[in-house]
Amino acid sequence: MPQAARRTRVRTIEWTRGRVVMIDQRLLPTREVYRVYSDHREVARAIKDMVIRGAPAIGVAAAMGIALGARTLRRDPARDFDRLCRTFAATRPTAVNLFWAIQRMRRVFSRNQHRSPDTLRTLLEREALAMHEEDIAVNRALGRHGAELIEDGATVMTHCNAGALATAGYGTALGVIRAAVEAGKRVQVIACETRPFLQGARLTAWELKKEDIPVTLITDNMSGHFMKAGTIDCVVVGADRIAANGDVANKIGTYMV
Amino acid sequence: MPQAARRTRVRTIEWTRGRVVMIDQRLLPTREVYRVYSDHREVARAIKDMVIRGAPAIGVAAAMGIALGARTLRRDPARDFDRLCRTFAATRPTAVNLFWAIQRMRRVFSRNQHRSPDTLRTLLEREALAMHEEDIAVNRALGRHGAELIEDGATVMTHCNAGALATAGYGTALGVIRAAVEAGKRVQVIACETRPFLQGARLTAWELKKEDIPVTLITDNMSGHFMKAGTIDCVVVGADRIAANGDVANKIGTYMV
Repeated sequence: MPQAARRTRVRTIEWTRGRVVMIDQRLLPTREVYRVYSDHREVARAIKDMVIRGAPAIGVAAAMGIALGARTLRRDPARDFDRLCRTFAATRPTAVNLFWAIQRMRRVFSRNQHRSPDTLRTLLEREALAMHEEDIAVNRALGRHGAELIEDGATVMTHCNAGALATAGYGTALGVIRAAVEAGKRVQVIACETRPFLQGARLTAWELKKEDIPVTLITDNMSGHFMKAGTIDCVVVGADRIAANGDVANKIGTYMV
Repeated sequence: MPQAARRTRVRTIEWTRGRVVMIDQRLLPTREVYRVYSDHREVARAIKDMVIRGAPAIGVAAAMGIALGARTLRRDPARDFDRLCRTFAATRPTAVNLFWAIQRMRRVFSRNQHRSPDTLRTLLEREALAMHEEDIAVNRALGRHGAELIEDGATVMTHCNAGALATAGYGTALGVIRAAVEAGKRVQVIACETRPFLQGARLTAWELKKEDIPVTLITDNMSGHFMKAGTIDCVVVGADRIAANGDVANKIGTYMV
C-alpha cells in the first residue's frame, strides 16, 4: 500500500500495480467509488471532468497520467511525449501545479531519452511517485508549522476543500487541522459549504467525518454571524496563488471571511 | 381584478370570488402555478408548507384564511373563532405580521359578534382585503422614499426576497427598486442566491425578470468580491425586525453584506 493510505483514511490518488486509482470526487459524499485507469487518456479526461480536483492533486494525477502514457511512445518518442504533455496541459489550465508537474516530467524525459524505453518508463513512473510522496511530505511540514497557531480546544473555520482530497493525501488547510489533532489538540471545524460547487459540503465535511474530527457544516452566508458571535477562533483556507506582497488568491468567498 | 394585479406583473395573493388564490412559491422559478383555496385549513397548510412566505404576505394570507374560516362558525361562534385564530397562529410563529393580522381580525370579530353571521363574515372579508390594500400602499410609500436614495444608473445588491412575492404584491426592498424604475431611473440588480433556501435565486431573480428589471444572480460568497471591485453602488435588504436603536434583524447573510 502506498504511504498515503497508511497516513490518512482518505485515499485521493494512488499508483497501484501500474495503474492510477482515484476516488471519484463528483460522487462524494453519498458514494465512495474508486476509478482505476490504465490509459493516460482516461486520466486526462478524469482531470477535465473533475473526478479529481484541487491543484496539488491535479499535478500528481497529470504526472501519473504521463507515466502511463510513456508506455505508448512509438517511433518518434520525443514528438509523442510532447503530444502527451500537451494533452495534460489542456485539461485544467487554471491549476498551476499541473504545469509544474508536466515540467518535471519533461525534464526527466529529456535527460533520459537516450535510454531504453523500459528504463525511461521506470524513471518517469518513479518521478510521478516522488511527486506524490513529496506533496504529502510538504503538506505534513506545512501542517506542523500551521498547527502551532491552533490552540487546544479551538474552533477553526475553513472554506472550500484544501484537504487530503485536494492534494496527494494530507491537505494544506485541512493538513494544519490534521496536524493539530495528531499533536493531541481538541479541534472543532466549521466548514463553509462553498457555493457554487459545494466543495465544503461535499468534500471537506466528508473528509473530516472520515477522520473523526468534529465538523459543522454552514452555508457561506452564516460565517459572519458565527464570527460576530465569537464562535470562531481562527480561519484556515487554501491559497491558489500567493503574491510577493502576501496577497492571496483563492476560491470565491475567501475574501469575505 | 384586485389592484395588485394591475400594479405589478407578480400576483402573490388575491381574494377572487370568495376564494384565496396564491402563487405556489415552492415551484418557482420553473413553474408558475396558482393555488385556489376555499377552505381555511388549506390556507393554514399553505402557510405552513411555504406555498407562501414573507412576513407581510403571510399576514395577508392569514387574514384571508380567517375570513374564509368565518363561514364555518357554528353554535358557539366566539369559541370557534378563537380556535380558527389559533390554527393560524400556529402556522409560522416567526412571522410577526401573522400575529398582527390575527389581532386585527380578532378585533373586528369582537366588535361585531352581535351582528348577523352574514354581516360579520362580510366585515371580516373587508378587513382582510383592507390589509391587502394597505400593505401595497405602505410598500409603495416605502418604495418612493427609498427610491430617492438610488441614483440613475445604479447597481443595487439585494439579499433574500423582500419583493412582491414576500408581500401583498409590491415589495419592501424590491419595492424601493421598483419605485426607482417607475421614476424613470435605470437600475441594475445583483441578487444574492440566499442559501440555504435560495429565495434570491428562485424568487427575486424570477420576479425581476418578470418586470424586465436587469438582474444578475450571484452566490452569497461573491458579494464581497463585487463590493471590493466597486460594482455595487448600494445594498437594499428586508428587515424582519428593527430595534429602537436601529439594529436590524434579517435573513442569515444580511450581516455580512
